[in-house]
Amino acid sequence: MKKPFFELMIPQLTAPLTEVKNGTVTSPAGFRAGAVYSGLKTPGPDKLDLGILVSDSPCDAAATFSQNSILSPSVTLSREAIQGGGKFRAVVVNSGNANCSVGEHGIIDAREVISLAASQAGVAPEEVLICSTGVIGVELPMGLIRAHVGAIELVDDGGMDLAKAIITTDTRLKNRAVSFEVDGEAGSTTITVGGIAKGSGMIHPNMATMLAFMTTDAAVDNGLLKQVLSDAVDVSFNLVSVDTDQSTNDTCILLANGAAGNSPIEAGSDAAEAFSAAVRDVAVYLAREMARDGEGATKLIDATVTGAHSVEDARVAARSIVSSPLVKTAIYGRDPNWGRILMALGKTEIPLDESKLQVFINDIQIVESGAAIPFHAESVVQALGQPEVYLRVALNVGDGDATAWGCDLTEEYVVFNSAYTT
Amino acid sequence: MKKPFFELMIPQLTAPLTEVKNGTVTSPAGFRAGAVYSGLKTPGPDKLDLGILVSDSPCDAAATFSQNSILSPSVTLSREAIQGGGKFRAVVVNSGNANCSVGEHGIIDAREVISLAASQAGVAPEEVLICSTGVIGVELPMGLIRAHVGAIELVDDGGMDLAKAIITTDTRLKNRAVSFEVDGEAGSTTITVGGIAKGSGMIHPNMATMLAFMTTDAAVDNGLLKQVLSDAVDVSFNLVSVDTDQSTNDTCILLANGAAGNSPIEAGSDAAEAFSAAVRDVAVYLAREMARDGEGATKLIDATVTGAHSVEDARVAARSIVSSPLVKTAIYGRDPNWGRILMALGKTEIPLDESKLQVFINDIQIVESGAAIPFHAESVVQALGQPEVYLRVALNVGDGDATAWGCDLTEEYVVFNSAYTT
Repeated sequence: MKKPFFELMIPQLTAPLTEVKNGTVTSPAGFRAGAVYSGLKTPGPDKLDLGILVSDSPCDAAATFSQNSILSPSVTLSREAIQGGGKFRAVVVNSGNANCSVGEHGIIDAREVISLAASQAGVAPEEVLICSTGVIGVELPMGLIRAHVGAIELVDDGGMDLAKAIITTDTRLKNRAVSFEVDGEAGSTTITVGGIAKGSGMIHPNMATMLAFMTTDAAVDNGLLKQVLSDAVDVSFNLVSVDTDQSTNDTCILLANGAAGNSPIEAGSDAAEAFSAAVRDVAVYLAREMARDGEGATKLIDATVTGAHSVEDARVAARSIVSSPLVKTAIYGRDPNWGRILMALGKTEIPLDESKLQVFINDIQIVESGAAIPFHAESVVQALGQPEVYLRVALNVGDGDATAWGCDLTEEYVVFNSAYTT
Repeated sequence: MKKPFFELMIPQLTAPLTEVKNGTVTSPAGFRAGAVYSGLKTPGPDKLDLGILVSDSPCDAAATFSQNSILSPSVTLSREAIQGGGKFRAVVVNSGNANCSVGEHGIIDAREVISLAASQAGVAPEEVLICSTGVIGVELPMGLIRAHVGAIELVDDGGMDLAKAIITTDTRLKNRAVSFEVDGEAGSTTITVGGIAKGSGMIHPNMATMLAFMTTDAAVDNGLLKQVLSDAVDVSFNLVSVDTDQSTNDTCILLANGAAGNSPIEAGSDAAEAFSAAVRDVAVYLAREMARDGEGATKLIDATVTGAHSVEDARVAARSIVSSPLVKTAIYGRDPNWGRILMALGKTEIPLDESKLQVFINDIQIVESGAAIPFHAESVVQALGQPEVYLRVALNVGDGDATAWGCDLTEEYVVFNSAYTT
């Protein structure tokens, strides 16, 4: 595919970041992880459904959670813990069961899972965060968890097993790590940021049915850590839509254990900028992979809106485009039906001037001044057949730019979600 | 199907209204209509795509329009005309082409269509409203319209032809009329309210890709007419969702010509109440039919939320449930996956108390106090197999009730919208 000319809008590894091969949450120093199959999910080769992430030393932590009014007790407990401040050592996570809407048992079971994980990891229960994902409304089979948690081996390279243990309808693992250098009194120190995530339905801006865990061996000022995570989530997970539905269990956690031995990174420093870029890089990578692996998806849709009155307007517009069933089905069918893109833009009711609108599919302009211009239809159809489709809408009324990610809507999404209880 | 015990929530014909058999916009006295096939839509047996509705005498008019920022010039012109006040005699409508996002030609063409229709109907151009529906971004083939508009015969029973002329992806016609008596000095007068509508994709609250025309032979105070339409649209078309997309061309028009000879209906009277009930009845009927005939739909979903803090909360919640792809696919698959209903409720972020939630599918309660209760799964699966599925969520935190309508999401929706330019 020819490179789109608006390439700069596509998140890329910025120069000082180095990608860690097969990077995960155990790529940063001082983190271990492990997982087992405990029977919460349908059995299958290489399936895991219960895992623990642990740090050798206490971590500063930041997290964001689902905005849904119906929340899993796992979210309630982790949110309370994070809000309470303090340091954390571990995260326990299960897939296959959301532990949500099960009445008072939910909170009792979540506390017991925390306690079991704390014993297994050799940390205190108050140092453990908890996440769950899977079917809503079914009590956690605590017998299975009690029987299998003891088999979790926490090892240095356990991140990939943890990545396996959190997936549900995902068709592939989502993992990444990057590193960068910070200069200090004792010379240069290598800092690593790693992450894993799961999708892949019930996914929409403002956190989705998604779990994302990120780790770093940097020492980071706690306020800065929270700001960096919040900023990164805003331009990554909050700009992903698979199906406009939003889960009861979404959680994104960032743990910093300081094992790299750097002087704590403070806001406003060069190191802070590099750290922020690294977290954003991992988060955007995971978010894009989540969109690409949406239930039933055959392609990633990358929608960029430029020249809006504000960044918020551009965000709203980009999300509306990737969320529209009619845009998603048109792209699935390789139909250059740009009228649907304008419809999705217009339904947001953001201020715009129709006569200034330009629309591009990959690098082919198809709309100028709000109306169709002659374009080579076959080239556009071919562009729409690529595994990544870049839509760009230039509003030309201001300076606000944003990119959101989604996927096409296929028969497979319907088959999948009508035939199975997920 | 056993009658649900929350039957009162389902809109019904109230006692004093009488249904008019095969009722349409020409059921009220003094309205005529006609339509032709002019080649704007793919040809087929019994296809019509250009029609005119005309009243023998000037009408008071009320209308609501799409909220989309991208609007067809047809909407722009009709909205300006309605806002300008005055009386109207006719509506011209075409299907197969939205006359939207085509640059400056759009407004020129719309004005010419108005002028052609005015000549054909024998009225002044400023007395004509215009609507268009169909593909966005393609110029109106004015040659076809000029060639065929003269063949439109405006006849007393032309309402059904007009109903045919406005449909696009609809699989059936949507039409209804009801009548009621009002007492006056010279005895009782029969008032009739008729309507036709089209769906069936790009449909979401706040007007959809929908056109609805309603007529009445009542004389009605102009302010009351506007209020009655606005109230009716609020509990009907604005509570329908097929796919969350919202078109550039939505229009709902209500014309009152006074041909019944009644003294003008004034706000606060018994006649006003009966008139309002009649308009609401027609609007709700058409809205439900629109949801039932959603693209690819196999069933109507009727979602009622009771006991919300406010009516607005209940509306938001009911719309969220019928809009959720995961609820829609579960109902398609007859999967009593009530966790998805709670998810859709919770993502609205309206205030609720999870421990007070009750969920019913048809008359079978499946959730009490926010958690599953034992239910006979086969009965629920059977209920979900009915052509109408009633979901009820009782929040039990206030007095706000609302019902919204949608349809299931099927492979056919995807096939339809990916394979064809609509």
